[in-house]
Amino acid sequence: MSKAIILLSGGLDSTTVLAIAKEQNYDCYALSFDYGQKQRSELESSIAIAKKSNVIEHRIMKISLNDIGGSALTDKDISVPKFSDSDDIPITYVPARNTIFLSFALAWAEVVDCQTIFIGVNALDYSGYPDCRPEFIEAFEAMANLATKQSVEGDKIQIKTPLINMTKAEIIKKGLSLGVDYSETTSCYDANSLGEACGECDACVLRKNGFSSANVEDPTKYQ
Amino acid sequence: MSKAIILLSGGLDSTTVLAIAKEQNYDCYALSFDYGQKQRSELESSIAIAKKSNVIEHRIMKISLNDIGGSALTDKDISVPKFSDSDDIPITYVPARNTIFLSFALAWAEVVDCQTIFIGVNALDYSGYPDCRPEFIEAFEAMANLATKQSVEGDKIQIKTPLINMTKAEIIKKGLSLGVDYSETTSCYDANSLGEACGECDACVLRKNGFSSANVEDPTKYQ
Repeated sequence: MSKAIILLSGGLDSTTVLAIAKEQNYDCYALSFDYGQKQRSELESSIAIAKKSNVIEHRIMKISLNDIGGSALTDKDISVPKFSDSDDIPITYVPARNTIFLSFALAWAEVVDCQTIFIGVNALDYSGYPDCRPEFIEAFEAMANLATKQSVEGDKIQIKTPLINMTKAEIIKKGLSLGVDYSETTSCYDANSLGEACGECDACVLRKNGFSSANVEDPTKYQ
Repeated sequence: MSKAIILLSGGLDSTTVLAIAKEQNYDCYALSFDYGQKQRSELESSIAIAKKSNVIEHRIMKISLNDIGGSALTDKDISVPKFSDSDDIPITYVPARNTIFLSFALAWAEVVDCQTIFIGVNALDYSGYPDCRPEFIEAFEAMANLATKQSVEGDKIQIKTPLINMTKAEIIKKGLSLGVDYSETTSCYDANSLGEACGECDACVLRKNGFSSANVEDPTKYQ
């Protein structure tokens, strides 16, 4: 069995990625971040999902991206906006978040002697974040292969993005075929303290439309 | 005046880089990391140096790389070795450290609307870490220019490495010409609680040889 680090937010996409990695027979190491996100219920989801998925280890790194701010997800003075289909990068974008998350995954991969990192980025039904695009992932992989001891010693690091060209409906169907229980996942950027989704933010609307397009009942608890 | 983020460890190299950035008339934002390094006196040095250098802001991000381990600098069960001129990457290498540090710099750069990041890597008198080589820095810069909102909106991110081709002696001479007081810097991987250097680790030997080659009195306090 090969090892893989799985970036696990506790949302619909990363939970599906974890199921895909398990289907591919990887020994899975789940990595989540307590990064000062206002949305705490996704962290609780990640803990429950990692446990149920029998990962080898689930690690939660604490990094205070709210000290850096610049996003509606980390700055208490910026409200989470309702869904918009504008082409602009929305205020929910967190500066360099995927770069930071993948960097920690790269470090942990080296320590557990693992050459594969899974991340649930998606470039179709997504919020338009620059660090979800295929060209970003390719550039990160190229950099990663010059960054670490294991890479310069000949082990090739791979960043795997199984969802990158899938619609949200396709992701949901794939996950259901692998037994994912989406009622356990949290996607909302603005859930309340009970973990109930707002139904109106970008993440909620993309998710809702995904269940609708997939002709699957939406198990999300809304406020 | 342009803005720049300066990665400041409190050591000889990064302190010289800060002086060079100031000489080049940048408004300097210093970024240090409390990353669980056993060597705490370098953090105290960074605070004193940032203050004396009148940076716009000095931020210390707390990230527990000791939870990841895999290095003599972060794992209490691994001793710091004495100097070796072997070509192997030494156990003081911290997995993906510069990738992680540069990623946070990239995030902060975006929030303060800054396109320049300085890092004091050096590929001549150095410990052989993969993430100090020019090819790593170039790959990081390429990735950074696909990662953030400001980069995709047309602002080019630059990673500046003024020391990369300098010998330690040349770095010291440059710093002295800019008024750097090297007695305030901490390079040792294994200093005692008083901040006194061991004189025998890689960092100490490279630094000592630098002062010697530069024909400058070594102001370091040794144990």
